[in-house]
Order: sequence, then C-alpha cells, then structure tokens
Amino acid sequence: MSEKYLIAGGDMRFIRLAEYLSERNCRVFITGFDKASAPEGKVHTLSVPFPPDEKMDHIILPLPVSNDGIYVNMPCSDDRVPIEAYADCLKPDGIIFGGRFPDKAKQILEDRGITVIDYSTREEFAVLNAIATAEGALQTIIEETPTVVSGQKILIIGMGRISKALIQILRGFNCDITVAARKYSALAWAEVYGCKHIHTNELGENLEDYSVIINTVPAVLLDSERLRHIRNDCLVIDLASKPGGVDFDTANALGKKVIWLLSLPGKAAPQSAGETIGKTISNILTERSAGG
Amino acid sequence: MSEKYLIAGGDMRFIRLAEYLSERNCRVFITGFDKASAPEGKVHTLSVPFPPDEKMDHIILPLPVSNDGIYVNMPCSDDRVPIEAYADCLKPDGIIFGGRFPDKAKQILEDRGITVIDYSTREEFAVLNAIATAEGALQTIIEETPTVVSGQKILIIGMGRISKALIQILRGFNCDITVAARKYSALAWAEVYGCKHIHTNELGENLEDYSVIINTVPAVLLDSERLRHIRNDCLVIDLASKPGGVDFDTANALGKKVIWLLSLPGKAAPQSAGETIGKTISNILTERSAGG
Amino acid sequence: MSEKYLIAGGDMRFIRLAEYLSERNCRVFITGFDKASAPEGKVHTLSVPFPPDEKMDHIILPLPVSNDGIYVNMPCSDDRVPIEAYADCLKPDGIIFGGRFPDKAKQILEDRGITVIDYSTREEFAVLNAIATAEGALQTIIEETPTVVSGQKILIIGMGRISKALIQILRGFNCDITVAARKYSALAWAEVYGCKHIHTNELGENLEDYSVIINTVPAVLLDSERLRHIRNDCLVIDLASKPGGVDFDTANALGKKVIWLLSLPGKAAPQSAGETIGKTISNILTERSAGG
Amino acid sequence: MSEKYLIAGGDMRFIRLAEYLSERNCRVFITGFDKASAPEGKVHTLSVPFPPDEKMDHIILPLPVSNDGIYVNMPCSDDRVPIEAYADCLKPDGIIFGGRFPDKAKQILEDRGITVIDYSTREEFAVLNAIATAEGALQTIIEETPTVVSGQKILIIGMGRISKALIQILRGFNCDITVAARKYSALAWAEVYGCKHIHTNELGENLEDYSVIINTVPAVLLDSERLRHIRNDCLVIDLASKPGGVDFDTANALGKKVIWLLSLPGKAAPQSAGETIGKTISNILTERSAGG
Repeated sequence: MSEKYLIAGGDMRFIRLAEYLSERNCRVFITGFDKASAPEGKVHTLSVPFPPDEKMDHIILPLPVSNDGIYVNMPCSDDRVPIEAYADCLKPDGIIFGGRFPDKAKQILEDRGITVIDYSTREEFAVLNAIATAEGALQTIIEETPTVVSGQKILIIGMGRISKALIQILRGFNCDITVAARKYSALAWAEVYGCKHIHTNELGENLEDYSVIINTVPAVLLDSERLRHIRNDCLVIDLASKPGGVDFDTANALGKKVIWLLSLPGKAAPQSAGETIGKTISNILTERSAGG
Repeated sequence: MSEKYLIAGGDMRFIRLAEYLSERNCRVFITGFDKASAPEGKVHTLSVPFPPDEKMDHIILPLPVSNDGIYVNMPCSDDRVPIEAYADCLKPDGIIFGGRFPDKAKQILEDRGITVIDYSTREEFAVLNAIATAEGALQTIIEETPTVVSGQKILIIGMGRISKALIQILRGFNCDITVAARKYSALAWAEVYGCKHIHTNELGENLEDYSVIINTVPAVLLDSERLRHIRNDCLVIDLASKPGGVDFDTANALGKKVIWLLSLPGKAAPQSAGETIGKTISNILTERSAGG
Repeated sequence: MSEKYLIAGGDMRFIRLAEYLSERNCRVFITGFDKASAPEGKVHTLSVPFPPDEKMDHIILPLPVSNDGIYVNMPCSDDRVPIEAYADCLKPDGIIFGGRFPDKAKQILEDRGITVIDYSTREEFAVLNAIATAEGALQTIIEETPTVVSGQKILIIGMGRISKALIQILRGFNCDITVAARKYSALAWAEVYGCKHIHTNELGENLEDYSVIINTVPAVLLDSERLRHIRNDCLVIDLASKPGGVDFDTANALGKKVIWLLSLPGKAAPQSAGETIGKTISNILTERSAGG
Repeated sequence: MSEKYLIAGGDMRFIRLAEYLSERNCRVFITGFDKASAPEGKVHTLSVPFPPDEKMDHIILPLPVSNDGIYVNMPCSDDRVPIEAYADCLKPDGIIFGGRFPDKAKQILEDRGITVIDYSTREEFAVLNAIATAEGALQTIIEETPTVVSGQKILIIGMGRISKALIQILRGFNCDITVAARKYSALAWAEVYGCKHIHTNELGENLEDYSVIINTVPAVLLDSERLRHIRNDCLVIDLASKPGGVDFDTANALGKKVIWLLSLPGKAAPQSAGETIGKTISNILTERSAGG
C-alpha cells in the first residue's frame, strides 16, 4: 500500500507538490485550496468530516507554516484551521512536515509524541532554491536595464549558495564578474569559477566600475559612504534577507536604483519550488528509513 | 577636425547612437527628438534654419528609414521631413546611412550623386543584434513559465545567428537543448555546441518532449499536424520574421501557448542596439578608408 | 537485406569505421588491415579471391586515398592494391567513397560509370573534426606550459571552425581569450562567444600580452616583425595547413617556442575521427535517397 | 624597508615562489637550489656563512617540509640541513612557514618561541590547487582515450573541491556528467552545476554506462564487486589520497584500466602551484596584520 499524505494549506507551490507526490505513487489528499484550480493527477480533495476517517502517514504544512503562530497559512482558502488540529489526522508514528515551524506549535506537537520536521532548514532545500532565486535576479536585470546583459560589469557581494548559482547562470552571458567576499577561501572559489575578486574591505571608489551590483549578504555593506561611489545608472539588486545589505534611505535620497527582491522561488518559479519541497521531503524519508 | 554627423529621426536607439558617436570625438547633431529627453554628452540639437548652414559629413537615418517610403520615421517628434530633404544637409562626398532604405528614395539620392549605405544589411549588425534577440527570448521564457529555466527540455528550430546566440546564453542554465535543422553541417555545429540534434523532417511525435520550443525559421514548420504533438503546457516562442514559423490560427484553436516576438533588440535593449548601429557604421567607414 | 560495405585500407580510424557501420546493421568487409588487431563486432575480413565473389554496395577508401596517386594508402598491410582495382568489387550503381581522392584516379573511375564521392570535402566532416583538432591543441597547451591553463591570456588568430571549437572547449578554463580576424563579422562572432577581439592589422606590440598564441590561418601572419613582440615564454601553436602561419626560420632564430600541429584528429582521437567518417557517409546516402 | 624572506629547499614550485615574492617587492633569498637554474627577478642566492649575518623576517620551508622528519626536503641540492637549523636565521617575531610540517620539528621550534604556520592546511590553498589537479586529470583523459573527450559519459565520485573544479573545466566539452555522492546537499549542488546525480549507494550495474570514471573519495568505493560492472574500455582515474578509492589488485586481475594520479599540482603546473603558495602566505600575513 502506498503512503498517504495530506497537504494542508500554502500557495501554488503546494499544488505542484501534490502532483509531484501523486506522480510518485503516493496517495495525496489536499485541504485549503478551495479557491485554487484543481491539481492534475490523482490528487484527492479532502473535505468534511474533519479529522478524516482515514489517518495519514504524513502531513505537510506550508512555508511558512503560519503567519500568526496559531493558524495554518492558507492563502487559497477562507478556512481557518489551527496548526494543532492536524495532530488528529495523523497515524501513530506519522510525521508532520512544515517550513519555518513556529517554536511553540512545534513544542505542543512534540509534547503529544509527534515527530515534527522543518524541511526549510535542510541544506539541499536551500541549494535548489538558489537556482530559482538566481533566475529571478537575472530576470530583473534583463527587465530593468536598457542594455543587453552580455558583457556587463557585474559585482556580486557574498559567495554563498545564491552567488554560486548566479555565477553559473551568468556564464552564458560572458559578463565581467567580480566577487567581493571576506574569506580568502571564498575568493579562491571565485577564481575557480572564473570571476575576478576583491576583499569586501576594499570596496570603495571601485564601486563606480559596475553597471549591476547584486548583494547577497544580510549586513549593510552598501552603507551611505559606499553608495556615493555607485553610478546613478547602476542597478543594485539586494537579495539578502532582513535587514538587507543596503542603506535604503540613503540610496533613495541619492537617487540610486535599488531593488530588494525577497522570496523569489515561490514567486518566480512556483512549480520548481514545489518540486524542491517534494525532493527534500523524499530525501528526509529515505535517510530515516536507511538509518532505521 | 572631427567629423560632423547628423542623426535624423528614430527611437531611443538613436539617442544612444548620438552619445556613442560623441564619446568617440565626433561632432554630433540630432533632429527629430523634440519629444525625447536630451542625450548626455556633447550632442547638439539641430533646429531651424533647415537645411543647416553647416553641412554634414554623414547623415544617419533611422531603422527603418521610413514607414511610408517618403517621410523619415520620427517617432519622437511631430515633424514631417521627406527623406530627400536631407540631401541638402550633406557635404559633397558625404554619405547617407539608413536601415531598410526604401528602394525609391535610395534611387533618388543616388541619382543626385550621393552615396547611400544600408547598415542593416551588414553581417556584423545582424550578429550583434542576435545577442539582444536571444536575451529577449530568454526573458520571455523566464516570465512565462512557472518553472525554473534550468534543466528544461528546449527545442530550437533553425541554426542561424539567433540560435547560436541563444545556445550560448542558455549554457549557464544547463538545459537539455535539441536543435532541429535541415543541413547536416548545421547539425554538426549543434554537436560542437553541445546540443542534441534532429533533422527537421523528423519533427513529429517527439515534439511532445519539449517544455519550450523556439522557432527561428521564417517558414511554417509548426503546421497544424505538428502543433497537435506539442504539449499544452509547452511555451512556443516564434522569433522568425513574416510569415513566422507557426500556423497561428491552428495554434489558437488548439489552445497552444504561442508568443511571436519581433524587433526585440530595439525594445529589449535599446542602448545596446544603438551601440550596434554605431559599431557597424564605424566598421563601414574604416573599410572605406582602408580601401581608398 | 542490409547493405554491403568494403573498407579498403587506412589507419585505425577505418577499423573504428568498420565497427561503427556494423553496429548500424551494415554488412562490413575489410581489407588491408592484416597487421592491425581485429575490430570488434560482426566485421568480416576479406581475403582471396580478389575481386570477391560477392559485389559490394559501397566501397570506402581511406583518407588520404593514396600517397602516390596510384596505390591505395594501406599503412596496416604490406599489400599493394591499385585504386582502380576496386572498380571490380562494386555492384552496378555502387559508390566508391574516399578522402582527398586523386584527380586522375577519380576520373578513371568515373569514366567507367562509377559514382565517386569525396567525404573529406563535406562541411559536417570539417566541423566534427574541428572538435578533435581543438582538443589536440588543448592537450599540447596543458603539456607544454608550466602553469595551469585556467586564467591564461590566449590569442586565437582566425575565426573559422577550429577557432570556434577551441573557444567552446576553453570556456571551462576561464581564460582571457582574444580573437584576431580580418572580417568585422568574425569579430562580432567573437563578441557573441565572449571573447575580446582585435583586427588582424592591429597585431603588433600587443602580442607581448599573451602566454599562448594559436594560429589557424594558412598565411604567414606571424612574420619576422611580429615574432619579435612575442614573449620568449609564450607557447605558439600553429594549426594551419601549409604553408602554416608562422615564419618558422625566424621563430627558431629568435628562440620562440613554436609547435606546428597537423592532422590532429587521426592522431589524437582515431575512434572519434572514424565515427565522423561514418556519420558523413551516412548523411551523404540519406541525402541521395531523399533526393532520388 | 621591504621584508626579507628565505626560501629553503623544495622543487621548482619554490623557484617560482621566489620570483613571485620578488615581483611583489620582497627581498628574497634562496638556499638549496644549487642544482636548479637560477630564478628570474631580484632573487638572491644565499650561501655561507650559515646562519647568515642578516636575519630574515620569514622563512619558507618546502612542501613537504621533510621526508624524514629531521632534514629539510632539498631535491635541488646535495646539502643536508636539519629543520631546526633555520631557527637561527630568523629575526625575533619572525615566522617559519612550511607545508605538512612534521609534528616533532614543529614542537621544537615552537618551544623556542617561534611561530610556525603550515600553509598546506589553509582552505584557499586546497581550493586553488584543485584547479591544477583537475587540469592534470583532464590531460590524462585526453592522452589515454582514443576518442574525443567531448560528449563522453563521465562519472565523478565525490563532490569536493576537485570535483567542482573538474566540473567547471569539463563544461566546455559538453560531456554527460554524473556525480555520485553520499550527501543529498552534494547531489543538489550537482544539479546546480548541471550534472546528473546518483547516491553512492546506488552505484552498481549502472557503472557500465561510463567511458570515464574519476574518483576523488579516499575510501575503496570501487571494490571488487563494483569493478566487475565497469567496461574494459573505461578509463578509471583515481585522484584520492591513500588508500585511494579503487581495489587495485582486483582491477589489475580483471584487466581494468586504472590510473592513480597523486600530487598533480607540483607535477603538472609547478609555476601555478608556486604562486598558490605565495598567495596563501600573503593572505596569512594580511590576516595577521589586520588582526593585530
């Protein structure tokens, strides 16, 4: 017998996740999508009674699980279901998955003996999402500049996952890419990937060389002093989570063009982002069964 | 003494062309841009009297030179100036450049002893514009698909300049690219560029393999029979000039998603397209002085 | 009934060609390989009587067909067979293929009503061989320089098939590549492929910038004057056919390091070179049957 | 006043290191190279008296520092100098650098109050050397296979630095690359880099798909059972340090073609390897001065 999954809430990523799992011979139920178009494949829409008669092997809550810490995040429905309520839908030994699980809700479920796993903290989840983030950043570059991307001088600040994915994607454009980073090993990687490199401390007047600057570091490296060196026709894209990497007030005052892009995977490529959640959960289950 | 250029009419590409030439120490006059923002650099706006007191070494007409064969194409002005009128602005031995020059106007100017050159027929012009076209196609792919571009199965029909530029750009995305072409040498080039390949005659049921199809051949290869094999979630982009490569009526009737993209360089990257015109004219003049 | 091929003479490429054709359900006979190890697959070694009782659909002679214009080039055998003799092995309407067919022998066979086709003049043959030539050039660079290839400043003279294949291969090495060419459209292609570019006429003192120079143009562009500007630790690889692109006497006198590499595909990658001959012949036959 | 360095012993990498440092305005002395050709630049050869009258700011010992734990590794000289002896050449507060420093010698020097730093343990040292190792592996593939590298099916086992460098380099060859690794995040990176991927546990019969297999993991993953699935015409390259990743005895008995490549950077690209040591030491000193 194939395993039974309940996907409860979330946006279009979770519709695709439902299809993805049903394509892999899981029995998939969904709830919280009454305002969305029905997924393809053998996905079952769960309705009353709640909790359902059949218990689930696994329940997948959205990313983020909740906006208020209590109710499940259900943008495609008017239903309001508390996180805790799903405990009653689960078989013994079942698992509740979720992304950015609120601490308190996690604790309550674990106190009831339920295994709770946050897929959003997995390394492969972050790596695969970096592709979608990098593509979203490229889309913005193409849309917001009056020149071709090919041959532009681009500065990338930081050398984490997103930067590496971005460097891969930009290769076909033959850009002149410089990586700024603090660690010498990060600068050595920039060399392996064919980029020029500069220590973050040395960013200053040389900022005027670039027509596109992409920040990935969640610290205000582009402060008021450095912003003055950036050309007015330079496009600055900030991909860093809060507080971001740009002093936005000064940037506005100086008339610099800064775009802060957040949560790109779900917006730019919801289907791929849904598959990434599916792959990550599949990996988690494979590891658990191998370890058992 | 630096040479004097008059740029008469055209869109934002020609504003950038004016800057480009002034950055290269030419004396540049423009006319027909009264509704556009002024270019940077030492560009002079030409106004009355007309013809001007100073004669020009070269006059650059837009692309296309004219929409009706008589008046110069001036989208940034309400002026209406006949092509012929510019003959009186030119020094003896001067050249009038233009893109897609109407035959009759060309004849009239040549009958007056003027050298007329169409920069849009130069090979390097077409090659450099292929970059902008390819980027515009990529932008559409990113915007119109709910998945990442990375890893998609893409079919490119034709193996001319645009296809080659597109293959370069797509390399960073690690797509699974197949090229369809008629000539075996074109298929050999596809192999050099790391693409799978198929003879155009063999396109049929295998069309259902692709999530993106890009046509560059101006012949209706995607006819009603072949369209039936294309998946409904496949994005078809037609980059071919008239008549295009898709039977649009059938495509619409079948609910296929087809986007016909024309004249991308001027729309997607007007500054780069303006520089391409500048480089091409510079090459023409270098060749003429070397040959003299 | 599958077609019968006789492969007569040639080097290891033709052993691989025999295997290639037998893998595609042809009946393959070989002659002139008594000193070579037997090919794999269902390949038949042809011995006495000669001409054989069974006539062949196609006969494939080597590349080059002959070293003296009369006898077939048979480096793997002590046999001496005149080209003409193979006329008697052929069915009516059969074809004799060969590479660099001697004019006179071709004429004699055609006078007897035989179709003679030189596969070495086909465009796809040259394109596919460019890959092997480019790899052979890279091998020499790796072997002959005390540095990594990554990051080197490389000049490529000419922008034909080999240069394009070489640029593809070198992409992974993140080299700083400049293309020198005469035609502006070739320089535009260099831009598409992410290379710097310079007109051949402007090669002079700037030659000292490069640690590797690769010539593909069969004209002595690296003459005594230009050679003086090349660094002594620069590796110069000449891939051009006679007369080559380097003034070798001056280069030797100046102590420059020049390596002239010819006929790389057969030496560096005989199996791939044999498959290229097979693909080319297969294309020729497909075209003839489609046209018939 | 520029700093004084003594480079004592080592192979051609250390000749290049001497040049590299002298090009950066250091005063460089060398000892232990009497059988090597003199380096270029302002490098001083140190001879008697020993210890020298002038004390050094830094002393750089080779990689490895010693073959026996007592005497410095001096392949370019007949001198025999104990590691300890260099303590007397150093200014107070000077540093002795070395690669793979013997524990006991390190302890003795530190007991005398000397700072001892092993540059070979730095992350950027390993990253930059990965480029040279990857190029050496590619050279072997080109030399040892009768086919072009382009288009081959290649398996890379492990996803560390060398694998990543190798994937970069192989991009230009359009190979069909599969990465085998244990960690799911490593498999996700393989996806970012455009490679297929497989969990190491699943390596079995599918090994027969590959024409080249490159191992980078220092554990015998290619054991007797897996070796049986490898084709006889497959080239296996083992880049892993001891014990290597292949059961060599079984491989020999089965007639598999296995090449174990060790210490490639110093052999294949001594100049680049010398520069890597120079960059690493420079980074160490920059960090110390910033931290001070």
